[in-house]
Amino acid sequence: MILTDEEYMAIAFEEAQKAAEIGEVPIGAIIVYEGEVIARAHNLREATRNAVMHAELMAIQEACTIQNRWRLEDTTLYVTLEPCPMCAGAILQSRIPRVVYGARDHKAGSVHSLYNLLSDNRLNHECDITEGILQQQCSQLLSDFFKALRNRKKEEKRLRKLKDSQEE
Amino acid sequence: MILTDEEYMAIAFEEAQKAAEIGEVPIGAIIVYEGEVIARAHNLREATRNAVMHAELMAIQEACTIQNRWRLEDTTLYVTLEPCPMCAGAILQSRIPRVVYGARDHKAGSVHSLYNLLSDNRLNHECDITEGILQQQCSQLLSDFFKALRNRKKEEKRLRKLKDSQEE
Repeated sequence: MILTDEEYMAIAFEEAQKAAEIGEVPIGAIIVYEGEVIARAHNLREATRNAVMHAELMAIQEACTIQNRWRLEDTTLYVTLEPCPMCAGAILQSRIPRVVYGARDHKAGSVHSLYNLLSDNRLNHECDITEGILQQQCSQLLSDFFKALRNRKKEEKRLRKLKDSQEE
Repeated sequence: MILTDEEYMAIAFEEAQKAAEIGEVPIGAIIVYEGEVIARAHNLREATRNAVMHAELMAIQEACTIQNRWRLEDTTLYVTLEPCPMCAGAILQSRIPRVVYGARDHKAGSVHSLYNLLSDNRLNHECDITEGILQQQCSQLLSDFFKALRNRKKEEKRLRKLKDSQEE
């Protein structure tokens, strides 16, 4: 059964929510082949203590394993946030023909924001790109996460100060 | 014991030779911490059928595992060829402070050739970069590899034609 871009993105969004639940920056990705979700992953950098454990990079590796090939032809990658240079590069390496993402990443996005890595005709692969699917929802999840993180840090600071003043 | 850049690059070069021996594009990388080689890897894309199994990306993951952290502070990465967008991105993600490479990659190099990903002050990390260490040797290994590959393909084509003409 073939779903709509919004429906596939909703599955990537579920992955992002799983990341948020364990304190990881909430980004999720899936890879679809012939209508079927063949790989799904969420950011696990903190849990694994591994710098490259971004959602897209893990989903790509899972799809390569499942398809037993490094060229992920005829697949679509859905990701909640615009890919960073590493993940855009991994998309090029795996020759994924179509990429759909939710929100733009103005700090490191390498599909439209800082670079156009997926549409550079000097490189040996270019992608069809669709952006803005469930944009609001994907973006909100990230801003809520960072807001909660800031509040937690403020509260920790306040408690530390309180403790210090009591010890004086 | 602290070695020179040339000596460390010679170890990365040994890794590249291992790749050539098994028919992989000959690129090798190592990561050094306090003078010691803590990770070494060579390109394994074909053997693993995994698009992201580049030397640098594997060495970074190995170093993260060994150091049990995703920030590879105080390390140097040596690689025989200028990193591609994915590997340059992985270097940024892991906050490696210094990168030394052998030959430029005019087709996909993202440190100097096509992009300057490791010295873009809009991103959250920049590296000290040294290029051209054992440049000639690293470059020669790659051109020999591709020359042998072209010759092998030509020979296969010739044998196929011969076989076809005998079957007619």
